[in-house]
Amino acid sequence: MGAAKRAGKGGAPRARRAKREGDPVEGILSGDLKMHDLDGSFGPDIGAQLRRAAAERATGTRLRAVASTVIRPDEAAKNTENFVGAAQVPLGLAGPLRVQGEHARGEFYLPLATTEGALVASTNRGCSIVNAGGGARVRILADAMTRAPAFVCRDVEHLMGTRRWVQEHLEPIRKAAEGTTSHGKLLGISPYAVGRTLFLRFHYQTGDAMGMNMATLATEAAARVIEKGTGARLAALSGNMCTDKKAASINLTEGRGKSVIAEVTLSEKLVKQRLHATPAQIIDVNTRKNLVGSAKAGSLGYNAHFANVLAAMFIATGQDAAQVVDGSLGFTTAEADGDGLYFAVSLPALEVGTVGGGTRFATQQECLQLMGCAGAGKSRKFAEIVAAGVLAGELSLMGAMAAGQLGKAHARLGR
Amino acid sequence: MGAAKRAGKGGAPRARRAKREGDPVEGILSGDLKMHDLDGSFGPDIGAQLRRAAAERATGTRLRAVASTVIRPDEAAKNTENFVGAAQVPLGLAGPLRVQGEHARGEFYLPLATTEGALVASTNRGCSIVNAGGGARVRILADAMTRAPAFVCRDVEHLMGTRRWVQEHLEPIRKAAEGTTSHGKLLGISPYAVGRTLFLRFHYQTGDAMGMNMATLATEAAARVIEKGTGARLAALSGNMCTDKKAASINLTEGRGKSVIAEVTLSEKLVKQRLHATPAQIIDVNTRKNLVGSAKAGSLGYNAHFANVLAAMFIATGQDAAQVVDGSLGFTTAEADGDGLYFAVSLPALEVGTVGGGTRFATQQECLQLMGCAGAGKSRKFAEIVAAGVLAGELSLMGAMAAGQLGKAHARLGR
Amino acid sequence: MGAAKRAGKGGAPRARRAKREGDPVEGILSGDLKMHDLDGSFGPDIGAQLRRAAAERATGTRLRAVASTVIRPDEAAKNTENFVGAAQVPLGLAGPLRVQGEHARGEFYLPLATTEGALVASTNRGCSIVNAGGGARVRILADAMTRAPAFVCRDVEHLMGTRRWVQEHLEPIRKAAEGTTSHGKLLGISPYAVGRTLFLRFHYQTGDAMGMNMATLATEAAARVIEKGTGARLAALSGNMCTDKKAASINLTEGRGKSVIAEVTLSEKLVKQRLHATPAQIIDVNTRKNLVGSAKAGSLGYNAHFANVLAAMFIATGQDAAQVVDGSLGFTTAEADGDGLYFAVSLPALEVGTVGGGTRFATQQECLQLMGCAGAGKSRKFAEIVAAGVLAGELSLMGAMAAGQLGKAHARLGR
Amino acid sequence: MGAAKRAGKGGAPRARRAKREGDPVEGILSGDLKMHDLDGSFGPDIGAQLRRAAAERATGTRLRAVASTVIRPDEAAKNTENFVGAAQVPLGLAGPLRVQGEHARGEFYLPLATTEGALVASTNRGCSIVNAGGGARVRILADAMTRAPAFVCRDVEHLMGTRRWVQEHLEPIRKAAEGTTSHGKLLGISPYAVGRTLFLRFHYQTGDAMGMNMATLATEAAARVIEKGTGARLAALSGNMCTDKKAASINLTEGRGKSVIAEVTLSEKLVKQRLHATPAQIIDVNTRKNLVGSAKAGSLGYNAHFANVLAAMFIATGQDAAQVVDGSLGFTTAEADGDGLYFAVSLPALEVGTVGGGTRFATQQECLQLMGCAGAGKSRKFAEIVAAGVLAGELSLMGAMAAGQLGKAHARLGR
Repeated sequence: MGAAKRAGKGGAPRARRAKREGDPVEGILSGDLKMHDLDGSFGPDIGAQLRRAAAERATGTRLRAVASTVIRPDEAAKNTENFVGAAQVPLGLAGPLRVQGEHARGEFYLPLATTEGALVASTNRGCSIVNAGGGARVRILADAMTRAPAFVCRDVEHLMGTRRWVQEHLEPIRKAAEGTTSHGKLLGISPYAVGRTLFLRFHYQTGDAMGMNMATLATEAAARVIEKGTGARLAALSGNMCTDKKAASINLTEGRGKSVIAEVTLSEKLVKQRLHATPAQIIDVNTRKNLVGSAKAGSLGYNAHFANVLAAMFIATGQDAAQVVDGSLGFTTAEADGDGLYFAVSLPALEVGTVGGGTRFATQQECLQLMGCAGAGKSRKFAEIVAAGVLAGELSLMGAMAAGQLGKAHARLGR
Repeated sequence: MGAAKRAGKGGAPRARRAKREGDPVEGILSGDLKMHDLDGSFGPDIGAQLRRAAAERATGTRLRAVASTVIRPDEAAKNTENFVGAAQVPLGLAGPLRVQGEHARGEFYLPLATTEGALVASTNRGCSIVNAGGGARVRILADAMTRAPAFVCRDVEHLMGTRRWVQEHLEPIRKAAEGTTSHGKLLGISPYAVGRTLFLRFHYQTGDAMGMNMATLATEAAARVIEKGTGARLAALSGNMCTDKKAASINLTEGRGKSVIAEVTLSEKLVKQRLHATPAQIIDVNTRKNLVGSAKAGSLGYNAHFANVLAAMFIATGQDAAQVVDGSLGFTTAEADGDGLYFAVSLPALEVGTVGGGTRFATQQECLQLMGCAGAGKSRKFAEIVAAGVLAGELSLMGAMAAGQLGKAHARLGR
Repeated sequence: MGAAKRAGKGGAPRARRAKREGDPVEGILSGDLKMHDLDGSFGPDIGAQLRRAAAERATGTRLRAVASTVIRPDEAAKNTENFVGAAQVPLGLAGPLRVQGEHARGEFYLPLATTEGALVASTNRGCSIVNAGGGARVRILADAMTRAPAFVCRDVEHLMGTRRWVQEHLEPIRKAAEGTTSHGKLLGISPYAVGRTLFLRFHYQTGDAMGMNMATLATEAAARVIEKGTGARLAALSGNMCTDKKAASINLTEGRGKSVIAEVTLSEKLVKQRLHATPAQIIDVNTRKNLVGSAKAGSLGYNAHFANVLAAMFIATGQDAAQVVDGSLGFTTAEADGDGLYFAVSLPALEVGTVGGGTRFATQQECLQLMGCAGAGKSRKFAEIVAAGVLAGELSLMGAMAAGQLGKAHARLGR
Repeated sequence: MGAAKRAGKGGAPRARRAKREGDPVEGILSGDLKMHDLDGSFGPDIGAQLRRAAAERATGTRLRAVASTVIRPDEAAKNTENFVGAAQVPLGLAGPLRVQGEHARGEFYLPLATTEGALVASTNRGCSIVNAGGGARVRILADAMTRAPAFVCRDVEHLMGTRRWVQEHLEPIRKAAEGTTSHGKLLGISPYAVGRTLFLRFHYQTGDAMGMNMATLATEAAARVIEKGTGARLAALSGNMCTDKKAASINLTEGRGKSVIAEVTLSEKLVKQRLHATPAQIIDVNTRKNLVGSAKAGSLGYNAHFANVLAAMFIATGQDAAQVVDGSLGFTTAEADGDGLYFAVSLPALEVGTVGGGTRFATQQECLQLMGCAGAGKSRKFAEIVAAGVLAGELSLMGAMAAGQLGKAHARLGR
């Protein structure tokens, strides 16, 4: 108990004393100094030290491990306010995994930042079996980031007029939107109406950035043009039909970010030898679990554990971990292929980038470089590798499930 | 380009040479040595070095930052196979945040591991406003982890018989389940049927562990008893009605893990001064965006960005980041309260623990200690603080949205 | 054009004249006489005539066919206000269909009120094939009607107190609820919370009535007890978690009304001869269409056309046609069974009755009698027959789809 | 018990005797005569008589009321195989209702075929209040019928090639599709992929027919062109992404058939006087029930009872009653408008027609004529009136709910 127990206490006398005596930690605890003002006053290095010291003093704990990091406070400041250090997540390697994409061709190690026992081992097994089947064939079917503001109109007639105005003024809208970005391109706008609320879903090509921030800024500029041209009022820059970081049918159906399919075909012999199950058994488990079970639960994830591989690769490579939510949507497919097995994963909403966001930090850069995916021109290659990794993870888990090994595998790995 | 380009190449001559010459890195690259066998042969420290060296040689990259970690390879081995180092995620502090829960009472700093610009700053602002409103009132409404195997019966009559048998043999089933765990308690079993597939959703109390692994092992033991007693065949130990790491209505409706509500009441004056919007404006945005927009998109997340705060706190404290998917389900509520604002977040599926999983690593332990939440007896306290943090994050973002500041806030923070 | 063109016109002078001259039709058109007051003033027969006359005069049309009905105005008044006659829907017979239920055992003709070309013929074909497979095995897995009021509490603590109070006062609540009905029994109450709104889902056994009205009245009485005992305010007697006449996951997952499964096992030879497709082809179509296609569309109906057979049988037998919405939820299952085909339909929310509602009208009674399902003690038998009919309809359509005959079948039947 | 108890019995001796003695009823019961062959052999009138006689004899019941109908057997044959008579559903009138649409302008009586007590009265009250508010403003936002076949490709590369081929060959595809119909126009094709299954959602303008059958035939012709051009195999002419007669997010989000919004603005005084509640109370109930309650239940219907009015009007006018399922999707909106109330219904998937299907029967024609909606050129007018009727129904029920009158209203009407 007693975390932060002194925070906010001490009151005015201590605060004055702190200032007088020049103890900035007391100043923070008394509220006289704001944590987010410290970098400006003391520089980012001392700022981070002071915040740690204040938190330590308030809570009676030590942040030694947190402080021990390769991340420089000045680097962190742009992404992470009130920086105090780092969370260190264990990193394991799976692979190499053979990928036959349009952008990724060759063999790749998969960096997985995870503490889920068996995940790396299981994915690794999946890689090996996919390789034996000739590698993962991967294709990107669509690539667009979306942002959907909500506008309020006077009535349905005004709403229809506003919708028409937007369709007839795509050029000035595009100009405003693209004026905020050097890489983003507006691909189109889809309208949706409920009562007198008009949602406009903007679709952007965002280069090699994941693009959510780019899309937000561009859409804000576009929204001002629309407000001015139509008299409709912007109620919310994000009206949740984007849909970002919330599972949504619109993304499962229409896609968001990169829509990717990865697949492999395995002979009956290979399935039996390596997965200790028949193709028919894997198909049966896939139908009962990933299709029927998910459907009966009202789920939007028709797969076993997309989210596990995604979370591990997202953290390793500086993606937005909250977008694992959107990535978890999608289907695992298992079908007879002659006597063999056709196995695929379909990820309609894989939102990743190789520039921007958290990609520029040191360990994240190394993990991207490991796959030849650091920097510009690499985001589609990266998306293909991630989807192939998800394929390996699904194949291994579905095999274990069909062979009745799930609990045992976890137990053996000692969790 | 060229990641892993040498992996698997070199073939037999190099492999033989590697063995002869005793170069284990070449042995790994040739496939003669398996990455996951290295710890056994060389110990975890050298095992990690060799894996790094092999990956570096295969891809022409360096893993210096990854190697520079406070995590000891022997510690990591149980959770993370093929360990090579760490992913370091910048950590910022928000708060202190006043929490008035049943288990958490006092002020707490929130550790947020994130690279999402503005997230810490925005959450911090939310904390400050929640504090001004008297703090976050938090309650846990339910607490149970689930696992739902799928059984195949001969026909619907056999299915009904199996269902009845389970109801009449809860004691031997419980005994088998609880025999696998020292902390878990079986709370009940809910049956669901589709055709001749019977899904049994097991509910467990799992102490201070998140409990998914505990539930899996216990359910496997129970499933063997059911198979033997009924002749129904276990098709999949997880039949996806659990539902783990996939967004699902069953979790939104019935809950999973901890079901938590956090709320605050703010005066009109406070809302106007600190959020630069009126209560009515915030209510309006909440309705159009979080209710109507989400509904029109077919979403299961009726909130703005639960997932952001959850992902940041989950990574900081060693939770399973893939379970942000389940955590992202839920509602933000904004209602008039006299002239003021009642504001709440409802998280039906907050799956967290303070022991087990990734909680035992160094930075994660420090972050838990910072909140007085490390170890046994703390998981409900922790869940309450997390929910309060989500409340702060929602309040700040909804305020920014209502005041028309979303894009600007991101822009100012330079992303 | 011009429908109702004179309605409301004529104004005061005509109204006065109408009264003076005693022309009640003019009185209706002028608004001096209310349509729903006519039965009281003139008796139901003349009331119906006057309403028809007024509508005819106002719109320049004739309602001759509508007036030509076996329904007596005095009988109709309780169910259908402002009665003017009947809609006549063509009725076809399918079957006989062999049913092996718990309650329905034997062969039954299915009355189908429909104008969907090919529906009766297709269902008839399905009946014949089901019969050849030994008949439909049917079981009812659950039987409860629900109503879920929404209560507003002061805050989450009050909400938890209210929830507890309800659990601890089930007896007085039950007494109040059951005091309103001679047949209904309260089976239980499931609580759900969002913010400070508490939804209480009441489950009732409703005898042989569909039971929605019974459940509403009972719940209203119970709600008054809860309001008084807890201080929570009843916001809406139906809070939509019932969920009535809206497709909802809660019904797909947990069931509502009668949850029924009907199944049949067919030999490979029979499938080939009668459906002109192999079991494997039917399984393949079922997976791609009813599971994958529905899932990708974000649907809650994992079947081909439950709604068609349900709508036709509901109209024929006086069920509430709007509840076809709930009935449309559910699964069609096709699985290999040795070389043959296991085929099933699972209807979690079949809301039907054999007393009350529209069942007592003349043609509806005859259709119920045709199946030996008129009156008390027959609702489960009826539900089993309906589910068996849905099975026949699905089997026939899935066969046609697999054999590539869908469009052709429709064309041949000349629509 | 014992319905159809003699069906199929009697066996060969009776059959032979029946034939010899010329008793066709015995021939039907013995299986020697098929019910659907009788019209060909004996003409539709005697065919209907014989079917009735056989069913009566088999079940020991009488079908007198069923036989007493205005529908001529020869007329029914095209829509309803094995015709035996009619189901008669009581018809009540609500209105007149003032509609200010693009196509419907004026006052209209609403024909409601229903046995739901209070429905006509409640809708009638709603009409009266909408009229007092100046009438229902209605607009159609989109109008297209869809059909979505599923194709199987060899692999994802073939799938992408097939998708591209379709985009590049829209003209021959259109030609094939439109060659099957005199009224239908192909508006576009939306592709969706899962694994190697490609769903193509065809959008059609279908004139004044609801258009499902037209769309099916046109799509079948188009599918043959695609199969031939690409080598992809048609797995199912309907792949359930259409989505017809199953509730689906794709329809809630993207629309199907006619997407219609109807709205009205009411002064505070009017709301209080006529609904006995304040605008704030109605808004509150709408939020808790239609938005939050529906969302928590995982529903796709964010309204109170669209399905009730739709089912009643669909049966009255010869629409496809199973499509009430799709019509039940959508939103009721209640917002403050100054001191008054903005109230709207949004129906994204209203699938109706004024020609074809069941519209041509006698009572259905009269009901359409009553609204000036019979025949060609009237389907949009009709859709606007239906939506206005749904608005009236929602307004009345939401008012009753807010005023605490729901159960009472039902009780007073004696159900």
